[in-house]
Amino acid sequence: MTTVRTRVAIVGAGPAGLLLSHLLDELGIESIVIDQRTREDIESTIKAGILEQGAVEMLDRLGEFSRARTVGVRHDGIELRFDGAGHRIDFAGLVDRGVWLYPQHEALKDLIAARMAAGQDLRFGVTADRVEGAETDRPTVYATDAEGQPLEIEAEFVVGGDGSRSVVRPTVTGSSHGGYFREYPFAWFGILCEAPPSAEELIYSNSPNGFALISQRSETIQRMYFQCDPETDPDSYSEAQLWEELQSRVPGTTLTEGPIFQRGVLRFRSFVAQELRRGRVALIGDSAHTVPPTGAKGMNLAIADVIVLVGALRALLLEGDERLLDEYAETASARIWKAQHFSWWMTSMLHVAPDASDFDRHRQLGELRSVVDSENGRRYLAEAYTGWPFEGLDRLA
Amino acid sequence: MTTVRTRVAIVGAGPAGLLLSHLLDELGIESIVIDQRTREDIESTIKAGILEQGAVEMLDRLGEFSRARTVGVRHDGIELRFDGAGHRIDFAGLVDRGVWLYPQHEALKDLIAARMAAGQDLRFGVTADRVEGAETDRPTVYATDAEGQPLEIEAEFVVGGDGSRSVVRPTVTGSSHGGYFREYPFAWFGILCEAPPSAEELIYSNSPNGFALISQRSETIQRMYFQCDPETDPDSYSEAQLWEELQSRVPGTTLTEGPIFQRGVLRFRSFVAQELRRGRVALIGDSAHTVPPTGAKGMNLAIADVIVLVGALRALLLEGDERLLDEYAETASARIWKAQHFSWWMTSMLHVAPDASDFDRHRQLGELRSVVDSENGRRYLAEAYTGWPFEGLDRLA
Repeated sequence: MTTVRTRVAIVGAGPAGLLLSHLLDELGIESIVIDQRTREDIESTIKAGILEQGAVEMLDRLGEFSRARTVGVRHDGIELRFDGAGHRIDFAGLVDRGVWLYPQHEALKDLIAARMAAGQDLRFGVTADRVEGAETDRPTVYATDAEGQPLEIEAEFVVGGDGSRSVVRPTVTGSSHGGYFREYPFAWFGILCEAPPSAEELIYSNSPNGFALISQRSETIQRMYFQCDPETDPDSYSEAQLWEELQSRVPGTTLTEGPIFQRGVLRFRSFVAQELRRGRVALIGDSAHTVPPTGAKGMNLAIADVIVLVGALRALLLEGDERLLDEYAETASARIWKAQHFSWWMTSMLHVAPDASDFDRHRQLGELRSVVDSENGRRYLAEAYTGWPFEGLDRLA
Repeated sequence: MTTVRTRVAIVGAGPAGLLLSHLLDELGIESIVIDQRTREDIESTIKAGILEQGAVEMLDRLGEFSRARTVGVRHDGIELRFDGAGHRIDFAGLVDRGVWLYPQHEALKDLIAARMAAGQDLRFGVTADRVEGAETDRPTVYATDAEGQPLEIEAEFVVGGDGSRSVVRPTVTGSSHGGYFREYPFAWFGILCEAPPSAEELIYSNSPNGFALISQRSETIQRMYFQCDPETDPDSYSEAQLWEELQSRVPGTTLTEGPIFQRGVLRFRSFVAQELRRGRVALIGDSAHTVPPTGAKGMNLAIADVIVLVGALRALLLEGDERLLDEYAETASARIWKAQHFSWWMTSMLHVAPDASDFDRHRQLGELRSVVDSENGRRYLAEAYTGWPFEGLDRLA
């Protein structure tokens, strides 16, 4: 058995864990990052991604390694479509901010390259089995390395950035499902297709047939979604049927069709862990919370957690001051619940619930009308979509 | 049997019907208003009331008869209270508008006095039985007068302003319940008490025990409400228990207690009639829609209907142009559904639903936090509460 020692052990090489290791490095705090997947797996699993302006500014700290502004595409607005008409939410004009369409796996390539170049101890194929010693000064990750050998990582602090099936979470919450949970009665059927863009910006369409999102990936590849039953079998649709479904939900736009080369059904869940920290173990990103994708908050909320936690770790490890750490859960929670609300709001405003009455349907259209009719409403939505200011930026290096 | 003829027959001497007769009179269009209640009944049935700034401006047209600005009290903000703290929504600072607390029965006294002084044919104790001839040029109200004798009112147009149990509505919708409906799983327990004000402005409090609204009536009389089960028997609470309930829901404020001289349970319903007009019969106010009281929209929405309808009647009766009448339902509906949404929003954001999960509860607090943290959010709420601009003002006399 091998035992290694570090200051911060980070479980999970996702955006949260990798960014955390970078920001700690900026402060001169050593860390080890482990992930059970291979680097190839991580970099090739295609994932969508929308980055708030502040999140792109965080990735700018990777210097030449960040391609968010070059490979990613800045969007200055979205369209809300309902009742036969489109209404642009002009982010740039309303709040002088934008978002970047930048797939998460591309951001991961950047983060991994940057960490490798900096000499980060970043170990793939290493599976965390459990964490012990949360209430001590030497919390320890018990893992199995790529060769199947036991590995102990003894640290001054352990962070779980290991996603929604987190192995670290039970140490913090005391049970694997300890948290606040909501499941939605619908899912997204997502496709990737080879075709030119059908629209310049994202279209969020509330149609009588259900929701659709027309998104973009590049000049030649597009990503689109439509609301479906969570039990839908992705293979139950022919390509022609998929195009028919999508087309029926964006009346007024003729979608440019092309071969569909990826498809899948994405379930909608909201989750927040009951506890975000116990002693010297804390959760960040999806291990702490899951949001439905309608609000485009997933990766951004992970980055927000990291910023708050880095400030707390700086105080703890460089100054011996535990006070910020004691506030970590409360500070992070404030944004988490605002983001949960925003995600729920966008979801409930745009989807047709299976049990919606005629009253509910008309009220929903009244809500959309209220938002787009009002500059204040549009601005309220735009500031949330493009991202509230991050808490704790002043405590970074 | 007596037959009378007029240009517009108005069923219901509520705020909508009386204001309509006034605005028609300004245009030189004769009308008759009937109501099954006595004048004393109407003027002495104590009702709450919050008027949007635009609604007060409409009452200004009564000249000396309107006491909205003298007996009514202008409020420049409200307080949202949750999670142990109060947050002021500063209407004046945010949108440069206010609202007036002016009980509906006081507004009715003004309207009746003004109409009487102008020689309006205004008949109390007259019960409308049915309306016929909607699709003809001579729609007729069949009624029973105060002496029990049949009365026919033959008109060029008939308007139903006769409240939620409207007799006119079936003529328009084809069935007495034709509409969009929502019932809420809670009600308000309302009291009137003899005491000085406990707060200067309205407090809308979301507490773990449920919602409470601390409102004001005068320097010596206060109105307060708390969320209760719709089946609650108003007499099941002692005065001490009522104060305990109220006090427990506004932590941080000590309520000034006093003798409770009125109490009642107010059910929460949302309703919009399926049709707002058929031929030469139209609905206004509560006969067309009901909103839960949380958004304070009831009387204001009635006034908005009236303004749209007056423009349409002016075009029809003075210019022989039916086009605006053909647009009445659509134009009025746009605001009705925005107001239904606002009322639902304030209700769902502030009340604790009996079946709310811990997730729902935290999300709700995240929503309240999102609104008060954001100037855009506060402004979006303030502009709705103080009232969107009225459609059709330019078509009045």
